Amino acid sequence: MNEFELIAQLTRELPTNAAVHTGPGDDCAVLDLDVPGQQLLFKTDAVVEGIHFEKTTAPERIGRKALARSLSDIAAMAGTPVAAVITLGLPENFQPDSIIQIYAGLNQLARQYGVAIVGGETTTNPGRLLISVALLGRVATGKAVLRTGAQAGDALFVTGELGGSRAGKHLDFTPRLTEARWLADHFPLHAMMDLSDGLAGDLPHLLRASRVGAELLKSAVPISRAARDRARRGDAARSAFAAALTDGEDFELLFTLPSHEAVPLLDAWKTRFPELKLSCIGKIVPGAGLRLRDATGVHPITAHGYVHFS
Amino acid sequence: MNEFELIAQLTRELPTNAAVHTGPGDDCAVLDLDVPGQQLLFKTDAVVEGIHFEKTTAPERIGRKALARSLSDIAAMAGTPVAAVITLGLPENFQPDSIIQIYAGLNQLARQYGVAIVGGETTTNPGRLLISVALLGRVATGKAVLRTGAQAGDALFVTGELGGSRAGKHLDFTPRLTEARWLADHFPLHAMMDLSDGLAGDLPHLLRASRVGAELLKSAVPISRAARDRARRGDAARSAFAAALTDGEDFELLFTLPSHEAVPLLDAWKTRFPELKLSCIGKIVPGAGLRLRDATGVHPITAHGYVHFS
Repeated sequence: MNEFELIAQLTRELPTNAAVHTGPGDDCAVLDLDVPGQQLLFKTDAVVEGIHFEKTTAPERIGRKALARSLSDIAAMAGTPVAAVITLGLPENFQPDSIIQIYAGLNQLARQYGVAIVGGETTTNPGRLLISVALLGRVATGKAVLRTGAQAGDALFVTGELGGSRAGKHLDFTPRLTEARWLADHFPLHAMMDLSDGLAGDLPHLLRASRVGAELLKSAVPISRAARDRARRGDAARSAFAAALTDGEDFELLFTLPSHEAVPLLDAWKTRFPELKLSCIGKIVPGAGLRLRDATGVHPITAHGYVHFS
Repeated sequence: MNEFELIAQLTRELPTNAAVHTGPGDDCAVLDLDVPGQQLLFKTDAVVEGIHFEKTTAPERIGRKALARSLSDIAAMAGTPVAAVITLGLPENFQPDSIIQIYAGLNQLARQYGVAIVGGETTTNPGRLLISVALLGRVATGKAVLRTGAQAGDALFVTGELGGSRAGKHLDFTPRLTEARWLADHFPLHAMMDLSDGLAGDLPHLLRASRVGAELLKSAVPISRAARDRARRGDAARSAFAAALTDGEDFELLFTLPSHEAVPLLDAWKTRFPELKLSCIGKIVPGAGLRLRDATGVHPITAHGYVHFS
């Protein structure tokens, strides 16, 4: 049984109730709790030492990242974050001062987005620091942008630039909350998610959820400076483009909307967010699968970014 | 800086917003999210291998306990649980079958109380299994029973029997959701919490929150059979009474109400919950501190259960 089969089996059997509008499988759960005109969003996420940060990472940046990842999931639903609870798993001899610094980074980001920190649990986790953040948000009823709505013919967009996040962005990224709400307020988004496992890893989830395929235009995929620099220095065994597809932790928005909205969107975006790149990177197509169009033709592409050249 | 000073400092600085009715420091946060007539409860908790369970504990019981602990916190507010999200931190080579069993235990308990499992995050936690559960509940507006309302003269009650939880109850305890809602529906509870760190460890939190003290009646504290058996076998270096005060993980309800309600409550309880013991174990008094009354007089008592005999 692979990871996806396991998740599929687990998800089928999970208990549900009348409050659940959208259960597991999207960026957040969507709940109907009788708030007039509003639905709630609910999400948990965790960062672990040695995986999402290093022992030497400044505690403020660890705390910031722990919250920012969940905020990015609320953004992916076009929602507004409200309140978070924090579980700290602390290694032996962890210093009180480091805990204060973790919370300093977390609190600063929370204040920036109006999020209340309403509870915390501290436990021992011998060997390594772990921080789990559960976040509650809200969204106007029916306005949550799910992964399931992409339609053949849609244009496919991504914010920012992809790849090379490990050089620093994975700690300091801006969750795209403002951008996502603006998008959902002004354009008929069909589907949206945030990029955490890389475009080649995440887009297939959206495609499967929507029962469609996609064709990426290679020249349109925005590659970050960090990915280009690393490829140029030769300390990565793969191209900057492969890094943009597979590095992960971009925490940018990936979304689709009707193709006739593409040009109006690009125009309006330049005025509203002149500092942040927005790229139309391809289109949604009928049938399953992810393909890449380059100068030589159209090629299948796997979740690991491996391109099968025919 | 000790643990309580650290928590006090962290708590003072946490970001808040208009949705927060009761922030950190109670069993759950209480949120006002514009649900007519209702407030939301929000809580996170975690269990860690080697601390809350052993490597040899059956995965179903681990999953059950992970959820049951958070359910006990919702009970302590007299609330109703609605939806949970789960973070699994998995050690290397953790078997898919064990994950399925963890969820089987968790799901069974969730179904029993009508809780939906609406999201999960899985990450690596090298070395040990960790499960963090965030739980959302609801309660009629103004009906959440906080730790802050105890008044001098109140009678102090506890459900069930205390001590010796490690013999098995810590895995299989019943979260007192039904009992807590019945209590809040039928009696004017002043303050309530659940017992996770032992009566001597937890009661002082309630006393400080309410700015009162308490006098326990030694002969009234209900001691579990497990604690008595262990003391009788002599494999514990302390008395069954000390175990009842300090063992922890009892997950029983501790609450106060006006003393003239004590006898009507005991009568009604026997009819409604004939299988579950309810004990009046003392009274709330003016001033700070926790004291114990026994045949020899009244003695101060510390959070570690140490009794200072004068």
